Amino acid sequence: MADELLVAKQRFELPELRLTGGGTLRDVAVGFETYGALNAARDNAILVCHYFSGTSHAAGRYRPDDPLPGYWDAIIGPGKAVDTDRYFVIASDTLTNLNAYDPDVVTTGPASRDPATGRPYGLAFPAVAIADFVRVQKALVESFGINRLRAVMGPSMGGLQTFEWAASYPDAMERIIPAIAAPNFNGWLTGWLSMWAQPIKLDPAWRGGAYYDHAPPSAGLEAAMRIMTLHALHSDWTDSAGGRAVADGADPTDVASAPFAIDKTLEDAVRLRAPMADANHMLYLARANQTYVPGAGGGATSVAEGLARIKAPALMIYAPDDLVFLPEWVEATAKTLSGQGVAVETAKLSGPYGHYNGIVRIAEAGKRIADFLARDF
Amino acid sequence: MADELLVAKQRFELPELRLTGGGTLRDVAVGFETYGALNAARDNAILVCHYFSGTSHAAGRYRPDDPLPGYWDAIIGPGKAVDTDRYFVIASDTLTNLNAYDPDVVTTGPASRDPATGRPYGLAFPAVAIADFVRVQKALVESFGINRLRAVMGPSMGGLQTFEWAASYPDAMERIIPAIAAPNFNGWLTGWLSMWAQPIKLDPAWRGGAYYDHAPPSAGLEAAMRIMTLHALHSDWTDSAGGRAVADGADPTDVASAPFAIDKTLEDAVRLRAPMADANHMLYLARANQTYVPGAGGGATSVAEGLARIKAPALMIYAPDDLVFLPEWVEATAKTLSGQGVAVETAKLSGPYGHYNGIVRIAEAGKRIADFLARDF
Repeated sequence: MADELLVAKQRFELPELRLTGGGTLRDVAVGFETYGALNAARDNAILVCHYFSGTSHAAGRYRPDDPLPGYWDAIIGPGKAVDTDRYFVIASDTLTNLNAYDPDVVTTGPASRDPATGRPYGLAFPAVAIADFVRVQKALVESFGINRLRAVMGPSMGGLQTFEWAASYPDAMERIIPAIAAPNFNGWLTGWLSMWAQPIKLDPAWRGGAYYDHAPPSAGLEAAMRIMTLHALHSDWTDSAGGRAVADGADPTDVASAPFAIDKTLEDAVRLRAPMADANHMLYLARANQTYVPGAGGGATSVAEGLARIKAPALMIYAPDDLVFLPEWVEATAKTLSGQGVAVETAKLSGPYGHYNGIVRIAEAGKRIADFLARDF
Repeated sequence: MADELLVAKQRFELPELRLTGGGTLRDVAVGFETYGALNAARDNAILVCHYFSGTSHAAGRYRPDDPLPGYWDAIIGPGKAVDTDRYFVIASDTLTNLNAYDPDVVTTGPASRDPATGRPYGLAFPAVAIADFVRVQKALVESFGINRLRAVMGPSMGGLQTFEWAASYPDAMERIIPAIAAPNFNGWLTGWLSMWAQPIKLDPAWRGGAYYDHAPPSAGLEAAMRIMTLHALHSDWTDSAGGRAVADGADPTDVASAPFAIDKTLEDAVRLRAPMADANHMLYLARANQTYVPGAGGGATSVAEGLARIKAPALMIYAPDDLVFLPEWVEATAKTLSGQGVAVETAKLSGPYGHYNGIVRIAEAGKRIADFLARDF
């Protein structure tokens, strides 16, 4: 595969970051990757923002024998929808990235060393907003001398970052492609994010967040990640994951166990990822999503106020079976933006994966993305 | 309210129960209530089966000043859809009923005294099937000298019991009214039931189920009941429950807390009920649902085999926004039954409560229920 992207993680540092909620975070560092080349006019850059459990590894492989490429590799690369022969793509890690112990992730969060104490922050880490993730990205983008992005895009929490960009910095991009995300979600998602988080706090190993000198709260974190994973999928997927069958050798009369094939599928999916993840980072991420207001970085205090500031033409991609960001929210946002004169179009993804169709089935929207990126606005 | 039903809990005892999975349970007792009068021909009886977190209190009040009546009071009573001037209604508690410490519930489960040891069973209680719940009900019905019920009905897990009746004892009822339930659910619900259960097992106070001499695992049980509650509702409901707002006096920057109005709504809803509930009972109930096969009490070993045994005309009531028993499962079961010559009709419930519409919005199907009960088959 001669056209395969080989990529390397890079590191972006900010000595200090003014936080949306007040206060300053010192010694900020996040990872990023780039694909393609920045042109002389510096007007071909596209920023890709990652989802809740994702990283800046949006495309390509670190090594030719990596089993999997980045999460949106189906649409990012040479000759693909986000054509790296034409565009310069930047993908960055967020603050408090879930995968704090992934060697290919650089992030700043509660597991990071607090420069004031030399010890991990734990819950002394300040509450951070998605608007803060975007402030870091903006500094990263400006470090390339880029004043205006061709596009900002990303799935799920990456879509929320995309709306934050468009609402707080409406002149900083030509267009946006938020996928499987709705800035106007209601208390349903707020409540579910609390359901994701609560197993961590039930695990005695969590110790009120002060576990960095002890064994981490792996059982609680794995339980939290299982809920998140099941929530992000949909019922059709469960048939391919074993359905209602009892797993080989498991005993359904043992109520202390989780003996079904679907239990094992979720356990296996999470067990590989949980050792890379930090429990406090998950709590901070959940809270950043729960308190999300688009445009918060520019002073907006309500969803309506933030949406009213958006000017960039938008291609909103969504999955009709999504149970995380419900399709009616996406459709209502499209209507709101359209009603204020923004050029909005929508694209639907099919597939059995619910919300997760926005990752694994994104190629279905490839032509729509390519056309939308190529257009002059 | 002269027509108000005043009801009293009664107790049904079985010296022993042969379990579907093998073995015998001794000293079985469940509670039940009756509304209306059994006629001389003993052919006007209707059995009502309760949902996962419900009890045999289907209608009426224990005392005139009870704040709330039974859960289906909107359709059961004098002159109502299930007209107690015409029909004799029996509602019974299941085995391992969640509300083991409710003074108006009688049940046999892991919190009960094991006659072999004189101590609570804990996890030594045998795994019980929904078919076992129905075996107890069948003995209860027969204790009245009733050979054939005019109808079996119930919501959610009560609907699963209804299908079990129809598949295991096809000549024992004239008709069935399963509501917000589908016997052919897939691994999606299996997996979610594991998600409901897992917080209990994370709570160190659970002690592998052996907590009866100690403080119970209340934190885990409340977390489990919050997930169950949110799952049984839907997004439109969350707006009336406070939406995304921060609760009065709560601090959204404290990630160790659950500060949103929706969190408080769920906490309050559960806090009133959790002291009545037993954590092990919830685990056993979850497993009884996960292993459900209609007709298991009559030897069926697959959903298809069980459904093929059903003959009783069916009115299947469902909520299109149901996220517990998905509407496509209900529709597929209706099609299966219809295809084998069963007279099947369906009725939809509207409302913002998702699955829970089957409880709080059941009156919407009242006329359909009354007509279906009055018809001759």
